[in-house]
Amino acid sequence: MNYLPLLHIAEEAARAAGQHALQVAASTPSEYKSPDQIVTQADRDCQALIIQKIITHCPGHGFIGEEGEHGQLFRQEPAGTEPLWWVIDPIDGTRNYANKALNFAVSIALLRDGLPVVGVIYDPSTNQLFSAAIDGPARRNGQPIQCRSEALDSNSQVAISGNYNPPLPSYVARFLERFVCMNLGSAALHYAWVAAGAYSAAFSLKVKLWDIAAGALICQRAGARITDLQDQPVFPCDCRGYRGQPIPLLIAGSTAHRQLINLIQPMNDR
Amino acid sequence: MNYLPLLHIAEEAARAAGQHALQVAASTPSEYKSPDQIVTQADRDCQALIIQKIITHCPGHGFIGEEGEHGQLFRQEPAGTEPLWWVIDPIDGTRNYANKALNFAVSIALLRDGLPVVGVIYDPSTNQLFSAAIDGPARRNGQPIQCRSEALDSNSQVAISGNYNPPLPSYVARFLERFVCMNLGSAALHYAWVAAGAYSAAFSLKVKLWDIAAGALICQRAGARITDLQDQPVFPCDCRGYRGQPIPLLIAGSTAHRQLINLIQPMNDR
Repeated sequence: MNYLPLLHIAEEAARAAGQHALQVAASTPSEYKSPDQIVTQADRDCQALIIQKIITHCPGHGFIGEEGEHGQLFRQEPAGTEPLWWVIDPIDGTRNYANKALNFAVSIALLRDGLPVVGVIYDPSTNQLFSAAIDGPARRNGQPIQCRSEALDSNSQVAISGNYNPPLPSYVARFLERFVCMNLGSAALHYAWVAAGAYSAAFSLKVKLWDIAAGALICQRAGARITDLQDQPVFPCDCRGYRGQPIPLLIAGSTAHRQLINLIQPMNDR
Repeated sequence: MNYLPLLHIAEEAARAAGQHALQVAASTPSEYKSPDQIVTQADRDCQALIIQKIITHCPGHGFIGEEGEHGQLFRQEPAGTEPLWWVIDPIDGTRNYANKALNFAVSIALLRDGLPVVGVIYDPSTNQLFSAAIDGPARRNGQPIQCRSEALDSNSQVAISGNYNPPLPSYVARFLERFVCMNLGSAALHYAWVAAGAYSAAFSLKVKLWDIAAGALICQRAGARITDLQDQPVFPCDCRGYRGQPIPLLIAGSTAHRQLINLIQPMNDR
């Protein structure tokens, strides 16, 4: 299968949606779809725009999107027998976006047999596009990128989630004591900066499939290791059975990844 | 004193420096000036450019800049008797910038008798300019802005510092358990987003005068309260005596500010 045309479709859809989001940012209405999740009209419109663009080229493909009815995810099963699902976060970082701050991104991935094969993250505010197909390099605005390979030290930037159910996990306190911990409010942008070799690692507790599918592939093609917090693979994922459950995720170059797993699971230190 | 011409000078200098920083971002060399502080050639060049632009219009004014010789601050005393000091951070968020990530900003303030009277924060990646003079409104790209006035809840975005000497202060753990904690890696951008009403608060432990002088004024003119962690005023500051010591800072609307002071100082809860 040649993924390049599919990558271009995803890139074009991400750019169109991102530009729309930027244009209506000042005026789009927002509401809470759950006690801790905001949605804006722009999220819904961008998702519709993305699906419309993709479906023209890929009739019969399946779709999972963040924005469905009644605060649920959107799902459209593949028409044929091919297990191809597009997984879409029309605006990752909706809280920033709804608050009229920047740092949000469009995230689009194509999964085949539950494995990401095409991934695009687009930041319209800065016109940065991060992308990869399973058979090519990770790129930032067309230029090949690689994740960091060295060990973490006190100057390493590690992206973390920004809120936790009490009590704060002790390993998060350890991260804050040892590294420069970042939170942009967009997991997709965290993964993009790991892939680009800016941040050393990204850790997330509560992210969903649409937050991570594109970023995981882009980071993998940039040389990073992608696992859950028990050091187990996150993909392949069961798209047909996915109902929005959180997927804890750790992404880093292999040396840094090992250090963080050891901090998360102190038993490993022995 | 009419501050509007001085505000325009600061805006013009910030835009010029920011555009230069953006142009050379991919190629500027970096080094550590202390074990935890990076500097790039662009920091030094941008500072020189800013001072050159200001000095043309304001001969005799004093200057404090982040980038002096041997990792020290830059200082040039005012020539006359007027206690006017420009305080400059040519690139706030240098770690991001040196790592080729975005989220950095130029921060320029004019202090009179130790009080900020003109402040500009410019994010060149997104072309956002935040500014205020002591006798006018805070603005984002020319539009008046206001900070949030409501109480904090679990959906509030609170910007925090990203690294701490162990043990992690217990109030930082409380912040992470109660709010959505952000760290862009640029304190100046945190203050800009508080002033714009996006983030609810910004807390910093290790920031310097050049990180905060512009942001404090912009936030003040947007309606926020600016204190240290003991709820005491941070300004006026002794520019002549300032040698780079850290200035712990808490900025928020008055209701949110009170909530955070109470979390920082549990004795206040009683």
